[in-house]
Amino acid sequence: IQNNQFDDALVAIKGLRPVDLADVLEQLEPSLGWRLLERLPDRAEVFTYFEPEQQVRLAREFPRATLAALVSEMPADERTDLFKRFDQNQRDALLPALAQAEREDIRKLSAYVEGTAGALMTSDYAVLRKDMTVAEALASLRTEAPDAETIYQAYVIDKKRKLLGVVSLRDLILADLGKSIKELMTSDVVSGLVTDDQEDIAKKIARYDLLALPIADERGVLTGIVTYDDAMDVVSEEVTEDIHKSAGVSTIAGNLKDATIGLLYRKRIFWLILLVFGNLFSGAGIAHFEDIIAANIVLVFFLPLLVDSGGNAGSQSATLMVRALATGEVVMRDWLYLIGREALVALALGCTMALAVSLLGYIRGDSTIALVLALSMVSIVMIGCMIGMSLPFVLSKFNFDPASASAPLITSVCDATGVVIYLFIASQLLDDLAVVPI
Amino acid sequence: IQNNQFDDALVAIKGLRPVDLADVLEQLEPSLGWRLLERLPDRAEVFTYFEPEQQVRLAREFPRATLAALVSEMPADERTDLFKRFDQNQRDALLPALAQAEREDIRKLSAYVEGTAGALMTSDYAVLRKDMTVAEALASLRTEAPDAETIYQAYVIDKKRKLLGVVSLRDLILADLGKSIKELMTSDVVSGLVTDDQEDIAKKIARYDLLALPIADERGVLTGIVTYDDAMDVVSEEVTEDIHKSAGVSTIAGNLKDATIGLLYRKRIFWLILLVFGNLFSGAGIAHFEDIIAANIVLVFFLPLLVDSGGNAGSQSATLMVRALATGEVVMRDWLYLIGREALVALALGCTMALAVSLLGYIRGDSTIALVLALSMVSIVMIGCMIGMSLPFVLSKFNFDPASASAPLITSVCDATGVVIYLFIASQLLDDLAVVPI
Repeated sequence: IQNNQFDDALVAIKGLRPVDLADVLEQLEPSLGWRLLERLPDRAEVFTYFEPEQQVRLAREFPRATLAALVSEMPADERTDLFKRFDQNQRDALLPALAQAEREDIRKLSAYVEGTAGALMTSDYAVLRKDMTVAEALASLRTEAPDAETIYQAYVIDKKRKLLGVVSLRDLILADLGKSIKELMTSDVVSGLVTDDQEDIAKKIARYDLLALPIADERGVLTGIVTYDDAMDVVSEEVTEDIHKSAGVSTIAGNLKDATIGLLYRKRIFWLILLVFGNLFSGAGIAHFEDIIAANIVLVFFLPLLVDSGGNAGSQSATLMVRALATGEVVMRDWLYLIGREALVALALGCTMALAVSLLGYIRGDSTIALVLALSMVSIVMIGCMIGMSLPFVLSKFNFDPASASAPLITSVCDATGVVIYLFIASQLLDDLAVVPI
Repeated sequence: IQNNQFDDALVAIKGLRPVDLADVLEQLEPSLGWRLLERLPDRAEVFTYFEPEQQVRLAREFPRATLAALVSEMPADERTDLFKRFDQNQRDALLPALAQAEREDIRKLSAYVEGTAGALMTSDYAVLRKDMTVAEALASLRTEAPDAETIYQAYVIDKKRKLLGVVSLRDLILADLGKSIKELMTSDVVSGLVTDDQEDIAKKIARYDLLALPIADERGVLTGIVTYDDAMDVVSEEVTEDIHKSAGVSTIAGNLKDATIGLLYRKRIFWLILLVFGNLFSGAGIAHFEDIIAANIVLVFFLPLLVDSGGNAGSQSATLMVRALATGEVVMRDWLYLIGREALVALALGCTMALAVSLLGYIRGDSTIALVLALSMVSIVMIGCMIGMSLPFVLSKFNFDPASASAPLITSVCDATGVVIYLFIASQLLDDLAVVPI
């Protein structure tokens, strides 16, 4: 790329919004991407939109002084996340080039455990004193605005930085300029603790429709805020985690497209192998009823259909429950009501499916086979639904993640019980000496 | 409940936040809940947090004039949603009691199709003119603030209400009071159309980290805004829909706890019955290889294990793809790269699982059985993964929802192919005259 082409490219991309710009620059080779980025006025914001791996890769290309300048312009939370992804060499090279306050900030923020409010929050927030007037507060926000992540919520603190209240910019704009912040502020503040789980923080922000949630340490000292857009990202990550778990895949951090073969293998093999051995119970059931199968090979024809139906119905129940527990639509004390209702739903589903399968059984076999299939289907679907509905509650009760009640797990459990129910009913109703051909 | 107890209750709940208050009042009987609600200063906000069914139920208890007063205090979008849930009698009773402007507003907003930006937006937003100064704009926002859902973003319109630009309150606070809005505004506004899908609107808000997205009609006239908190609710609904689909459950609108048995039955039976008939293909496969099964009953022992493994691995692939397509991590053009990588992952998974199952086969049968099982497992897992990965792309290509590639569907497809692969390999390698006992 020539110099004049370079300038043309710069003009062409300057009109784009930061997130769109990041998408364009990510497609280019690192050295060119970096040269363009360096010349953009909002380069720090564009940089925060790059994928984490891309950020680290690009950072290696940067001259140390430029990297330090870029890092200083980043919001405190993004800066800390980047720093945590650097290796020791990169950290040692970067730290001395930063200002004392930024070094201190990185040190503090990076000390919090991943997945907690502390690791999610930013230290760029706006504070006010309770003895300020509205006019003074507005002047103070004007000074703080270039650094604070939001000035729409300002936090009122005392000399020890303890959180006393919150004032919105909306209230400030509407109030008389001479009014004191003490009169204007809401002192009953919704807040979180640095040690809170990031999922709980996100739920609080969604429940109270907040723009930002203030985070205090165990002494009540204000240490940061979590903004609604970071909370939305957390919700999206947690949903992905739950969805992956529903298919027996362990948490895959980062973008699926960038995942290596080794990572995908490791995240998937555990449940697959576990389920192979879990399926031995189905096998044991089959072995136990060997004679009845050998005498009635037609039973094998319907085996996958019956056991799958139990697994399918059970997976539906489990999926409905896992999601309802995750959104808070249902809670533990609803269990008894829900299991009663589920029994009736399952009975209706089972009867309809029994009708379908006994019709098939009558066509392929005889009326005795049809009866065996109908009875088996109702029992299997009902037991499948009960297992599917109860397992998330049981897991939740013993402090496991209800999302671990995955479709493959439910399917395996339902398979084993299904095989036993089906072959037991068959052995009771069929004459095991009369060989019925398929 | 006595009058003095009533007053005590009122004092006790007055300190609660609106959403918490709604939770408390929902537990009480309608007439008491309504008497308490009526006395609360922020009753309209509390009312918006009730479940939709509860809102309609409570509204029946209200005297007409009080209901009209409450409805007038509600935000325009919530008011319209409530109105749409009323039956004709309730509508006819309410409309004459409302002001002309509100009636007109309800009429306009309720005309938009459910699921579009038009049905999601509110008409309570703040507007400015481009020839205003910053001081005039601030004064104007002070007047509009009590009605507008947000004043943190104000929209600049011309005389025909065409959208010219956007100004944030942050920019207004920081700017000189004499500066003109024309100079200050961003004229390249991210906006949506009234006919846009609500999911696309929510994605735009998340991508550009917006507080609100302005919505224009086909002539470019500003007609409403969608706020970030409503977008978060849409994301949550769409995720629930996708999760339900992953288990073959059609969309259940509203709270799971309030769903009736009939509704749950209808939402679940379609896929269950379809899969019963789908499973006939597995049965047909079994019937085709009847002789080899009859001669080697040991094959039945491993049948559920093998076919389930294909379904499990395939469901993992499908789930990973469906979620990655939903979040936009992968797009259609990534398909070739992803299928190549998936083949390698599947090979590694298949080999590991083959090792486990052939060990079991050797213990229960002999080395030939072990070989049959190992070859079958690798083939079944690889084909399962290819089906699981491709189906969401294929559905997406033909404009179906990729989330319809549900675990039960993948399981059924993989079962049928698994049965055929397993029994075909067995028929090639086993001497079908030598009966091997289980």
